[in-house]
Amino acid sequence: MDLDLVVKNGVIVIASEVLPHGLQIGVKDGKVACIGINLPTSTNTQVVDAEGAYITPGGVDSHVHLAQKNSPTGDGWEAGSRSAIAGGTTTIIAFASQEREDASLYPVLEDYHAKSKDQSYCDYGFHFILTNPTDEILRNELPVLAEKEGITSVKLYMTYEAMKLNDRQVLNILFACKTLGMTTMIHAESHDMIALIIEGLEKNKNTEPYFHAVARARIAEDEASYRAISLAELADAPMLIVHMSSEIAVQHVRDAQTRLLPIHAETCPHYLFLLSEKIKGESHDHFSGAKHVCSPPLRHDPKDLDGLWQSIANGTFTTFSSDHAPSKYDAPGGKRLGLVDGIPRFSKIPNGLPGVETRMPLLFSQTPACQSPEKARLSLPRFVQLTATNPAKLYGLDGKKGSIAPGYDADFVVWHPGSTGACTISQSILHHDMDYTPFEGMQIENWPRYTILRGQVIWDQSNGIVGKMQYGRYLKRGMGQVLHGKTGNLPQGWREDERRYWL
Amino acid sequence: MDLDLVVKNGVIVIASEVLPHGLQIGVKDGKVACIGINLPTSTNTQVVDAEGAYITPGGVDSHVHLAQKNSPTGDGWEAGSRSAIAGGTTTIIAFASQEREDASLYPVLEDYHAKSKDQSYCDYGFHFILTNPTDEILRNELPVLAEKEGITSVKLYMTYEAMKLNDRQVLNILFACKTLGMTTMIHAESHDMIALIIEGLEKNKNTEPYFHAVARARIAEDEASYRAISLAELADAPMLIVHMSSEIAVQHVRDAQTRLLPIHAETCPHYLFLLSEKIKGESHDHFSGAKHVCSPPLRHDPKDLDGLWQSIANGTFTTFSSDHAPSKYDAPGGKRLGLVDGIPRFSKIPNGLPGVETRMPLLFSQTPACQSPEKARLSLPRFVQLTATNPAKLYGLDGKKGSIAPGYDADFVVWHPGSTGACTISQSILHHDMDYTPFEGMQIENWPRYTILRGQVIWDQSNGIVGKMQYGRYLKRGMGQVLHGKTGNLPQGWREDERRYWL
Amino acid sequence: MDLDLVVKNGVIVIASEVLPHGLQIGVKDGKVACIGINLPTSTNTQVVDAEGAYITPGGVDSHVHLAQKNSPTGDGWEAGSRSAIAGGTTTIIAFASQEREDASLYPVLEDYHAKSKDQSYCDYGFHFILTNPTDEILRNELPVLAEKEGITSVKLYMTYEAMKLNDRQVLNILFACKTLGMTTMIHAESHDMIALIIEGLEKNKNTEPYFHAVARARIAEDEASYRAISLAELADAPMLIVHMSSEIAVQHVRDAQTRLLPIHAETCPHYLFLLSEKIKGESHDHFSGAKHVCSPPLRHDPKDLDGLWQSIANGTFTTFSSDHAPSKYDAPGGKRLGLVDGIPRFSKIPNGLPGVETRMPLLFSQTPACQSPEKARLSLPRFVQLTATNPAKLYGLDGKKGSIAPGYDADFVVWHPGSTGACTISQSILHHDMDYTPFEGMQIENWPRYTILRGQVIWDQSNGIVGKMQYGRYLKRGMGQVLHGKTGNLPQGWREDERRYWL
Amino acid sequence: MDLDLVVKNGVIVIASEVLPHGLQIGVKDGKVACIGINLPTSTNTQVVDAEGAYITPGGVDSHVHLAQKNSPTGDGWEAGSRSAIAGGTTTIIAFASQEREDASLYPVLEDYHAKSKDQSYCDYGFHFILTNPTDEILRNELPVLAEKEGITSVKLYMTYEAMKLNDRQVLNILFACKTLGMTTMIHAESHDMIALIIEGLEKNKNTEPYFHAVARARIAEDEASYRAISLAELADAPMLIVHMSSEIAVQHVRDAQTRLLPIHAETCPHYLFLLSEKIKGESHDHFSGAKHVCSPPLRHDPKDLDGLWQSIANGTFTTFSSDHAPSKYDAPGGKRLGLVDGIPRFSKIPNGLPGVETRMPLLFSQTPACQSPEKARLSLPRFVQLTATNPAKLYGLDGKKGSIAPGYDADFVVWHPGSTGACTISQSILHHDMDYTPFEGMQIENWPRYTILRGQVIWDQSNGIVGKMQYGRYLKRGMGQVLHGKTGNLPQGWREDERRYWL
Ligand SMILES: [Zn+2]
Ligand SMILES: [Zn+2]
Ligand SMILES: [Zn+2]
Ligand SMILES: [Zn+2]
Ligand SMILES: [Zn+2]
Ligand SMILES: [Zn+2]
Ligand SMILES: [Zn+2]
Ligand SMILES: [Zn+2]
Repeated sequence: MDLDLVVKNGVIVIASEVLPHGLQIGVKDGKVACIGINLPTSTNTQVVDAEGAYITPGGVDSHVHLAQKNSPTGDGWEAGSRSAIAGGTTTIIAFASQEREDASLYPVLEDYHAKSKDQSYCDYGFHFILTNPTDEILRNELPVLAEKEGITSVKLYMTYEAMKLNDRQVLNILFACKTLGMTTMIHAESHDMIALIIEGLEKNKNTEPYFHAVARARIAEDEASYRAISLAELADAPMLIVHMSSEIAVQHVRDAQTRLLPIHAETCPHYLFLLSEKIKGESHDHFSGAKHVCSPPLRHDPKDLDGLWQSIANGTFTTFSSDHAPSKYDAPGGKRLGLVDGIPRFSKIPNGLPGVETRMPLLFSQTPACQSPEKARLSLPRFVQLTATNPAKLYGLDGKKGSIAPGYDADFVVWHPGSTGACTISQSILHHDMDYTPFEGMQIENWPRYTILRGQVIWDQSNGIVGKMQYGRYLKRGMGQVLHGKTGNLPQGWREDERRYWL
Repeated sequence: MDLDLVVKNGVIVIASEVLPHGLQIGVKDGKVACIGINLPTSTNTQVVDAEGAYITPGGVDSHVHLAQKNSPTGDGWEAGSRSAIAGGTTTIIAFASQEREDASLYPVLEDYHAKSKDQSYCDYGFHFILTNPTDEILRNELPVLAEKEGITSVKLYMTYEAMKLNDRQVLNILFACKTLGMTTMIHAESHDMIALIIEGLEKNKNTEPYFHAVARARIAEDEASYRAISLAELADAPMLIVHMSSEIAVQHVRDAQTRLLPIHAETCPHYLFLLSEKIKGESHDHFSGAKHVCSPPLRHDPKDLDGLWQSIANGTFTTFSSDHAPSKYDAPGGKRLGLVDGIPRFSKIPNGLPGVETRMPLLFSQTPACQSPEKARLSLPRFVQLTATNPAKLYGLDGKKGSIAPGYDADFVVWHPGSTGACTISQSILHHDMDYTPFEGMQIENWPRYTILRGQVIWDQSNGIVGKMQYGRYLKRGMGQVLHGKTGNLPQGWREDERRYWL
Repeated sequence: MDLDLVVKNGVIVIASEVLPHGLQIGVKDGKVACIGINLPTSTNTQVVDAEGAYITPGGVDSHVHLAQKNSPTGDGWEAGSRSAIAGGTTTIIAFASQEREDASLYPVLEDYHAKSKDQSYCDYGFHFILTNPTDEILRNELPVLAEKEGITSVKLYMTYEAMKLNDRQVLNILFACKTLGMTTMIHAESHDMIALIIEGLEKNKNTEPYFHAVARARIAEDEASYRAISLAELADAPMLIVHMSSEIAVQHVRDAQTRLLPIHAETCPHYLFLLSEKIKGESHDHFSGAKHVCSPPLRHDPKDLDGLWQSIANGTFTTFSSDHAPSKYDAPGGKRLGLVDGIPRFSKIPNGLPGVETRMPLLFSQTPACQSPEKARLSLPRFVQLTATNPAKLYGLDGKKGSIAPGYDADFVVWHPGSTGACTISQSILHHDMDYTPFEGMQIENWPRYTILRGQVIWDQSNGIVGKMQYGRYLKRGMGQVLHGKTGNLPQGWREDERRYWL
Repeated sequence: MDLDLVVKNGVIVIASEVLPHGLQIGVKDGKVACIGINLPTSTNTQVVDAEGAYITPGGVDSHVHLAQKNSPTGDGWEAGSRSAIAGGTTTIIAFASQEREDASLYPVLEDYHAKSKDQSYCDYGFHFILTNPTDEILRNELPVLAEKEGITSVKLYMTYEAMKLNDRQVLNILFACKTLGMTTMIHAESHDMIALIIEGLEKNKNTEPYFHAVARARIAEDEASYRAISLAELADAPMLIVHMSSEIAVQHVRDAQTRLLPIHAETCPHYLFLLSEKIKGESHDHFSGAKHVCSPPLRHDPKDLDGLWQSIANGTFTTFSSDHAPSKYDAPGGKRLGLVDGIPRFSKIPNGLPGVETRMPLLFSQTPACQSPEKARLSLPRFVQLTATNPAKLYGLDGKKGSIAPGYDADFVVWHPGSTGACTISQSILHHDMDYTPFEGMQIENWPRYTILRGQVIWDQSNGIVGKMQYGRYLKRGMGQVLHGKTGNLPQGWREDERRYWL
């Protein structure tokens, strides 16, 4: 047991508990070889002293948009992955996005492999975005791509003119993925509700960025979430609803989980910390509200935030992702697309916010590591579940990513001891290729001191990025686990054997 | 006060109470002139002696299909209205049904006026069925038709290939009707769920009539009902969900009513009394199950019935209609369309059941007039609400139809005294032009002894139909009342003034 | 039909509908003889012209405390009934209140008969308050008193040291009343929760009147209401929870009603219009908050009011009573009991507010008679249900009180036409024997113009009280009706025949 | 790192995951020293080969009754702890039970120390049962006992004549425990409901054992659970409701957990596997049903079981304990106390079932280790949470018991590989000192092969009990963790600072 690395003096947090103080982590060949009380070191062993700080699993950000065609000013792999590791994330799952006219996923994947190869500071995988789910793709391509490329999840949209699928297409995908053991991610907003409101707003010339938050009303998310859950119940298929922002929609998930439906939910930093007020922009420049335009939109009321924090704490949310989907504010093809002949047009503003770097520190700041017990919003194990363990399990990386245990990749975040890691978020300290952060000025109680990926320190806050761009590896993923409920449930009112007549 | 008719010795039931025994109803010129203890009669006064029996308002059946093109073997006005009065119904609201290719409602209406004029034993009105809700129709035709023709309600479908509208079309109709004060009726089943199951059933060659009940699963109604309510909530528009058959769907309505949304619900006799077992047909002739094919289908379990009875009693259901939508069983173009080359194909069977005549007696049999208090399923006033008062109010006939009070049309059902009206339902005693009844063999505790329309006895059980075919009048209806909740509610998460930005 | 009185030109409202305009009510021998379009009058006929105004049934206030020993400064029958009729109430049901040491109800009743005989301007009945429900009383006295004296309802308390019963006693009463067909009223607040908070407040010297609202926290009502409903479910007995003030507690009732349990609910004017702010008193005299001390207390937030208004509109509340339970503010033995040696002690302040006179005008002001449709809080028929029809039915006065129909007592309120009846509530215009009103300064949109009891005008706003003190009659009541749900339900998890083993 | 023991070739399961195959556990001085891939062994190292089997943390059974005065025929420490280790349980928390007349807990504790000292095969701690919670005890004794003796939890009863506390006493305890950081366990059944039914049953001579299940109706548990939660919400205190058996009661817990109240729930093997049918006894000997008399009773319907299994899977239940509370069937002072003069009297039968030995195997048999994925009732990590991690955390043993991680006590269960551990439960194979098991004849899919306590094999299925009676240690426990929700919530309707006025 000639260890390559020993991390000592830390307090290891895993998904189920805070382990006893003073344990050491021994790493060999990029993997955790052992965890113990006194581990042997040799001259070949690098030692990292955590100085009593918390050590959490390297972050797994399972919802990141990089180098997509519909976001020409957004981060590519270099900037995106650099930003990720500076914020404690060692694994990202980005999207390989099918265009409506793409009849096959193979060239799509090739394209994204080309964009990412040797460009990543962190490990990464792909979900497919399906916008044209042909029978050929569902029956013949997906199984091959799952098997050979380890792409075991797809995302689909119920909204956006360019991407939306109808209920039948959603069902077809759910059935296909269920059969393959794949996970379906779904953006749930009622397209028709939103389209109608947008038309009305435009007719009334209410087109400043703020009206984006009016256009995509909570009820559009509530209805679509209930519908998505019903479709998944019919298909008896696991599903994750992405970036949830509404308490009622989340209550639908909670009810489904109570009944053991395999329904998972994701939320994002901006829905926990920011309100629609932000979209009003600065008093002298309303258009600057465009910096906060994303979908679903930021909601109006502090009670909306409270409702989501409740679901962070009570276990309803499965994952906490950044939905890093940036567009530069002051660049052609970026947010300024929403200024048409000098007139703000919220519906033309590219959607999405940068956030891959700030995700982990923002949430860690709300744990008892940084807050008094009464003020803490979530426990440390819950932090680990949401930021690492659960996305790893859900997306087929269990046993490799998302935990600190022998056999796993040696991916860690070493935080600062005590309160020594506090700082303020500002664009100037971030590593993305964007020109703003929506969290500008927010107080952070602790920032990752070291990020370690497969046994290598790749971020050292004293020295900045110390990893290499080519170090990140493409991850062939296995089949995901069901983390809430199970398959095999019977919709209410059905007879025991009813499904077999038509399946 | 020279009265034309006095009905004496009855126990009058209205929507709020059973009035004291022994009151008399005085009728003049087809309307109730007074209700009192001792009314003066003259030689010109006809006297009907109720002999202590209950008197309820003439039935208003607000969901009746007659002479529709898609039902060539169904009843026309003569048979349908004849059947209605024999069962205690004095007013029906039937449908003027737009075909997809109809660009205007005017010829549609003309057609239905032609079919019904001088053909009706009872009074009648029309709802429009909208399958092609163009802007022209919504903006220009509906207001005129409401004003001039008194058609103040429309029905739309979320399912059936030939009729289904998408969510945006539903919203457009809801907004248009809301502005006009009209009521929107909606058939809520998820088309995409059902279509998928049907494909699977057909692929597996499970095509006997019974599989109709598998194809249109309860979850399809549950989801569509929630969606319909959400659309109505966005539009802030009154709505009635027709022919509800699922406890969960009805619970969505109950929740909406609790929150004061103007959501109304209808159920029908077959959902309260019959189960999917019936669709299995007779052991030697499975296809005879076609006689029980309707949509939503009969459900599987006695608990389904109980759930609906609960909502009959607790006030959730607003109306109880027949959905009389018959097709002959043994006739070309009738139910036998579902036998293709001798092979049963449930998806080809015309949907719908006859029931306009049996509606009132079936429900009356469940009141304390016929059952011990513990066994009664609903009170007598609730019977009146469901069968007469509520549909009259909801569809703009209040003050004229649906109650027994001075100023109202003198439309009554005089029941048999005590238990003297019991009989058994059989095809042979009915007055429709069908070749079967789905309720064959069911025990009835009381059948209407007299049906009185505008002061004329038109059904006298001893003498049969005594009214005349031309007696029925077309009813120009006023705007309907909202019977549950109110408009003006704010969807959860909205700011006070949010609607005005886009309306 | 030589009528004694004809009321013409009115718009009659009953529990189910607003009748057509212009109907006339004919009265003979104190009862409604007929309702019709043109009624014959003679020289013996008094004619009251409603001038187009609404006519509603005379109010039935089913929760009124008069001349109770524990309220020495409160109204007796003369003042209380005078105040009632001036506000449109023609029937009150007051309490005959057993003291703990009273071993029999007979002397209690005798006492209250003595206090009320020839003292009442309006008709009246009694509920018993049971504080010592001995077997003798439950088994032997109640049946006799129901039969001979027409006292068919009892009230009990889960709180107040001097009156509270434990769960077993509550069960005993529920079972006894169920057997007799009597209705049980229950004051539901958790005594133990409240006692604990009071001790804490007193220890911390927080004893000003306002702390009354802190002491009797909403959760005490929520828990006790759930418990009371559970006890009634076990006993399969009808129950009314009096003076409900909390949305959650009312939601328990709603859920029970959905399941058809025979659970009824009452609320009072102060819970719909006033907030705990009032209990803070005037800035220079905090103790004046004592004027607003009642139990349950006024709640804190406008949302509390909204929740109750919702249940007014959606049908959950069965009755709307005054809980007229006054103590003079500035009199020995009145509210000033809460000033102990000059120190305010909220726990010593007599509970209760005067309100029998203002009840009907306050609620009527919220109907479409006085408000635009969007602002109206309840419909006119719902007003009639809550203020007259429902309490009459629930407490065994149906067929006699609570509606306007032939055979019923001729008890009406004739309101002012249009907006001519507006006024402002002030102590100076009221007819009770109190020295304040909790509704001082509130705007009323319409005040009863005439109150008519058994065909006699007893209140004429132009001339004041025109009835006579001896005119009011004692009402022997029949058994009450169940207005929500029914008996005969099976608690969840029970087998069909389970009750028979132990009943 | 000279290890005393290495367990190799196992698949370790912890509360958050199944760790990668093939990890080794190294033990030194009774604690886990490290977990790793290849651990060094020496000649001093004992090696246990798991042969590919699962290894789970030693069971923590937090609800065990031993040597209580009210159960003279029950197991004492020797038999109880022997039975525990044979079933994979290495830690039990038993009760030191105060009698009503005990004014101090010190002698109570001394007594139980005397009964258990040097008598235990496994480690053990005490909860206090409080039946006389004087101020002296709550204020002065509990803090001392928590500090010096590590007794940081109490149990109380809402039922049983000899033990029940009223709501105020419950509140007093909750407040006291909250202040001390202690956990309150509560037996929640409505005493008054049950007492009434029992009286009725006895009056009707329905006294056979089966009527025990009728007497303690589900509604008694539902109501008491809601009440207990409300009391805890008022007190803002963590609570665990013991041995829950009713779906509705558990739904109250679920709702509380959704709102982040610190409410925990326990269930037991008998409520998941057995129905009231069992209490009917054998056809020739109904009294033998006494063997299945416990409180709450076994419920009637398989749906009751399903509801509980759902809450096992969805996370609502916190712990799964045996409630080992045995009385011998055929012994004086045992179950036969319920035969009075040869007549069965269910109310005299001592309550409780033996189960400490069968608890772990019964539940393990329902995991994917033993069932196909669709049939498995719970995941392996969830098994670990319920049987070990959660009770350890909840009762202040975290960092020491309940998990397999360096620093923890080396307490493990090594199961049989594959399906080699199947057997059938029978009295003959068990190690308690009872004369029956309620699970007689049930199929078990895997039984613990080795039980290891602090690094010593104490149960080896091939050789039986190999541990020593004196080996078990008394556990001074720390303060428990809150595992669901948190303290600091505000009851609905309260103002922010409301508590400070009275606390
Ligand atoms: Zn999205
Ligand atoms: Zn996204
Ligand atoms: Zn339809
Ligand atoms: Zn229809
Ligand atoms: Zn009271
Ligand atoms: Zn009162
Ligand atoms: Zn217990
Ligand atoms: Zn126990």
